[in-house]
Formats: sequence, C-alpha cells, structure tokens
Amino acid sequence: MAKLHVGTAIIKARSLLEAVGVPSSEAITTARAIVASDRWGIGSHGLMRLPFYLARLQAGGINPKAEMKKVTDLPSLVVFDGDDGLGHWQLQMAAEVASERAKINGIAAVGVGRSNHCGALGIYVWPMINRGLVGIAFSTGPAVMPPWGGNKALLSTSPIAAGIPTNPPTVIDLATSAVARGKIQAKSQAGAELEPGWAFTKDGAPTTDAKEALAGMLAPLGGAKGYAIAVLVESLTGMLIGPTLAKNIPDMFASDQDSIPQEISHFVIAIDAAKLTVDGDNSRTTEFTEEVKIAGGRLPGSNRVNPEELNNSDEITITDLVNDQLALWSTKLGI
Amino acid sequence: MAKLHVGTAIIKARSLLEAVGVPSSEAITTARAIVASDRWGIGSHGLMRLPFYLARLQAGGINPKAEMKKVTDLPSLVVFDGDDGLGHWQLQMAAEVASERAKINGIAAVGVGRSNHCGALGIYVWPMINRGLVGIAFSTGPAVMPPWGGNKALLSTSPIAAGIPTNPPTVIDLATSAVARGKIQAKSQAGAELEPGWAFTKDGAPTTDAKEALAGMLAPLGGAKGYAIAVLVESLTGMLIGPTLAKNIPDMFASDQDSIPQEISHFVIAIDAAKLTVDGDNSRTTEFTEEVKIAGGRLPGSNRVNPEELNNSDEITITDLVNDQLALWSTKLGI
Repeated sequence: MAKLHVGTAIIKARSLLEAVGVPSSEAITTARAIVASDRWGIGSHGLMRLPFYLARLQAGGINPKAEMKKVTDLPSLVVFDGDDGLGHWQLQMAAEVASERAKINGIAAVGVGRSNHCGALGIYVWPMINRGLVGIAFSTGPAVMPPWGGNKALLSTSPIAAGIPTNPPTVIDLATSAVARGKIQAKSQAGAELEPGWAFTKDGAPTTDAKEALAGMLAPLGGAKGYAIAVLVESLTGMLIGPTLAKNIPDMFASDQDSIPQEISHFVIAIDAAKLTVDGDNSRTTEFTEEVKIAGGRLPGSNRVNPEELNNSDEITITDLVNDQLALWSTKLGI
Repeated sequence: MAKLHVGTAIIKARSLLEAVGVPSSEAITTARAIVASDRWGIGSHGLMRLPFYLARLQAGGINPKAEMKKVTDLPSLVVFDGDDGLGHWQLQMAAEVASERAKINGIAAVGVGRSNHCGALGIYVWPMINRGLVGIAFSTGPAVMPPWGGNKALLSTSPIAAGIPTNPPTVIDLATSAVARGKIQAKSQAGAELEPGWAFTKDGAPTTDAKEALAGMLAPLGGAKGYAIAVLVESLTGMLIGPTLAKNIPDMFASDQDSIPQEISHFVIAIDAAKLTVDGDNSRTTEFTEEVKIAGGRLPGSNRVNPEELNNSDEITITDLVNDQLALWSTKLGI
C-alpha cells in the first residue's frame, strides 16, 4: 500500500487529466471528486479508476473537451447534454445549478444525459448539504441486474445518494444491488459460498456459487422491493433522460470498448430543507440526530468529510498496483 | 368473505364519513382512495381501516372539518398544514397541486404536515401518472424500526411510492421494512419461525422468534441500506415537515389513543417526464417496457387499476369481520 497526501493526490490527478486534454477547471473539479472518494475510504471509486478514465479519454470514449449544453431550461428543471464528458465535473455542476434554483423555487432538479461514470455518487449531494438543502442523486451504468423473475440484465447497480443537512450531515450512498460485484469476486477468490439473495446465474436462477454469479447477474437488495427501487432509478436516468438504456452502456473497465461513449445519465434533486417545516420549527433535525445516538445507532455517512473542504494534509492510501499504474501514466504522458 | 361492488362500497364509505361530519367533497375523495386499495387487493389499507378512522373522527384524533392551510408557497414548493384532517383527501390534493406546478416548472413538490394515515401510498402517484408525470410520495407513521444497530424504534415503516408513466403505468409502493407486521403475525399464528432479517427483539437483537418480534421491532429491508432509505423518508416527512417525529405518532389501532392527533406528514414530488429527454426521444419508455417483458419480468404494479377511473361495477372482497363492523357503524350512525 502507498500513502499520499490529499493535496499531492489532487495535483497528480489534475496533471494527468490535463495531459490528455481536459481543461484546468474541469480537471481540478474531477481530481477533487476522485480523491474525495479515496479520502472516504471508497478506493473502488477513487484513484483506482483514473487509469481507466485516461485510457477512455485518449481512445475517444470520453470527450476531454466536452461542454455542457443546456437542452431544457424550465424554472425548476434544467437538462444538459453532457457531450460525452467526464461525469465528475458534470454532476458537480448539475448539483450546483440545482442548488441555486432550489434556493429560489423550493425544489429544483437537473438532468445530465450523454455523460460518463462519476465515481462515488455521494460526493455530489454535498453542494446541497453545504447550502442547507436536501440533495438526492441518481445515476446509471452498465446493466448487471435482471428484472425480478427475469433472465436478462436490464438494470445497472442503480445507485442512489442522498444528503440531509443534519449536524453532522447524513450521507446516504448505496447501490440498489444486494452487494457489489467486488464482494462476490472476493468470495470467489476465497473459494467461499455466497449468501442467499446476492446473485443469479446467467439464466436468472438464484445461486450461491460465486463463479456462477460472476458469469451471471447481481440480485437487487431485499428482493422485489429493491428491483422496484432500481426501476425508479433507471426511469429517472437512462429511460427518461437518455440517450440510452443501461443495457447498452459499455463497461468502463473493458479496454476493447474504450472508444465507445458510455452515454450515462445522471439526475439530481435539491430541496430547500428549511422551507419544509409546517410550524416554523427546525429543531427536529437536532432532536432526531440525538435520538439516533441515544438509541445506539448512527446516521448514515456521518463520518464522511466534506468533499468541498478537503484538507490537503490528510493522508489517503492506495494499493501498490494503482500507484504503479499512475506512475506508468505519468511517464507515458511526460509529467 | 363478503363481495361488494366498487360503486356500492364508495357510497357506503362516503355516507359513513359524512355521518361523522366530513364534508361531501372530502368524503368522496377519501372513500374512493379507501375502496381503490381494496380494488387493488390491499385489504389491509382499505375498508378494513374505515371503522378505525370513524372512531378517531368521533373521538377528536382526526378533525372532520379540517381545512388545508397553505403555510409556504414558493413557485415549486407548497407546504400545507393539514389541520389534523384525513390523510386521503389531503394527499390527493397535494398530488394535484404538485402536478399543476410541475407542468409549469418541470418539477414541484408539496408537503403536508399535521395530517393523518392516508391508506395505500401508491394511490397518490396516480394524479401524476395520469398527467404524464413521474410521481414520488413519502409518508410516515408510528415508529416500528430502530436505527441500524440501535435499540429503540425511531422510524416508521417508512413507505415510498412512485409512479412512472409507462404503458401500462409502473407503480412502486413499498414499505422500507423487510416485511409488514401482518406477515409476522401470520407466522406467529402458524407457530412458524421468521426468516432471518425480518425483525429485532425489543432490545434490538436479531430474532427469528415471532413472539419476540411482535413485542420487538421490524427490521429494514436489505439491512443497513434499507435503514439509510428509511432515514431519507423520515427526514422528508416527520423531521423536516413535522410537526412531529415518528417516535411520537400514536397507533391508529389503539382505541385509548383515538383522541390524540397522529400529526403525520406526507411529501410528494412531481416531475414532468417528457421534459427530461436529452435528445427529444421519448420512445425509450416503450423500449424499456418491452425489454422487461422479453426478459420474463414485469414492471412493478403494472396490474393496478387507475384509482381516478374506478369501474363501479367491479367487485371487491372484504372479510366478514370488516363487513360486520361497517354494518354496526351504519346502525350506530343511523344510516
């Protein structure tokens, strides 16, 4: 494992992105989002992905010079064409626009179509949290889950994130699949059985065999209920925003598809939290937070640092493999 | 079991509600929502509840003459004080107002505080579906679930409903608890074990003993993920709208609490589905619906009839117990 300061990691990521043609402003925003994920301990969505983004930026799957084109502009709903750009800075911009509009209108939403993978979805509810808003974010990706009872993958892991301006903030950040594919890979490597309800064979039959599962599909969390929630996520992204359904989205790790745009869509909703109160009382937020603590629980994500206020001297840990890959890319790009 | 025509059932429910002082317009809307639930086969949220609503309407826990008082009116966000009225007509009105505003602004939301139980939450996404909108609804109720790892019930079953204007419409309607309490009662009566992950003891320990579970608490669907979703629901209802958290909401079946208002809050979001498209193409809705069918699955709730277009000659089935209770109330109220 290699240790890096947050500030150093951001400069490194930014330089690599700039070297393949991403403009400074978008490179900085993207680098911060990537490193924030590592700072949260979610390495699977952090610097580990950067080599794959770089390969796609070079091969044409991601457009380094993308611009956000406004295709719909209603008072509380804006839809952008992401022009095949990086999901990170595009979703950050979407969250900022939604926040501004929500401050005026009470609630607002922004959709981004024709975009790319955005890293950890929970990052993008922070622009809302930091402005006293509730934020809800949806995204899509390659199809990995079948419809309930079905035999073909049509739904992505169907992630949902939500931020609530409690103190400390509540950050909900979850895939609608029962478990991540990585967890099944780990079981496979350990030669262990899966728990029931995690996966299906390629024909849609429930399985606890890790190898069958890896050749098959993920199961939704909580059975049919998780499937229903995943349908809502796909509806608000690939189906209604588009331009494509999850079933057509290429895998960002498949190097033979690096030149094919993912055409991923994202959707964020911002709600002015303080305006919801029926009686002018906003102290229930404190009351609920206290009650959760007294009951021996904790609010989701309440240990996550604010990605808009990262501390450059904090340390993150990346694997030696990721460290080596980034060094190779630095050499390759002459940094 | 007793069979009733939908039209007869609506007249019966309406007459009973009017007899305890509910004005005609609100009585009709409420009667339709109640009977629609029975028509959907969700007897637990239909006429079965009417005797309990009537008892609360007479005892003061529900205000028959309630008026919706607008306390916040932003372009896309309206918050009403429900004045302790019936949840059914209040949530229907909320959905209609949200729909009107969403048609203008792209997205809109309506909160209702100080309201009551609303029956099946899925009913209220239909005003949106019928106007080509996506609808999302949240409600709260008595606390039955602990925070993850905690030992005190702070969260309601935390229901979420969503409607998507596919053809036929998609209706998502679920509690965030793993199972309903009724399912645990059925296991208890059968002397059977519960499945793991359904319930906790009163001290928050996982249990498969139905009796311990009935004296204890429900578990969230899919473990910590379901808990996180439930926190979002409580945030958007009891916590931010109010006037009270789930932990203070009385049980509508407890007759000794019939005079205590539930002070339940509801929140609905409406989104103009056709305005989300990034490329002007709205045919992905048909494509997704077809793909689900081809894969051998079906869209959630796609067999539900439109509650705004009930067929009076359709039949519903209620238990003899419910039939007798309604007859007793008819006699008592001189109908």
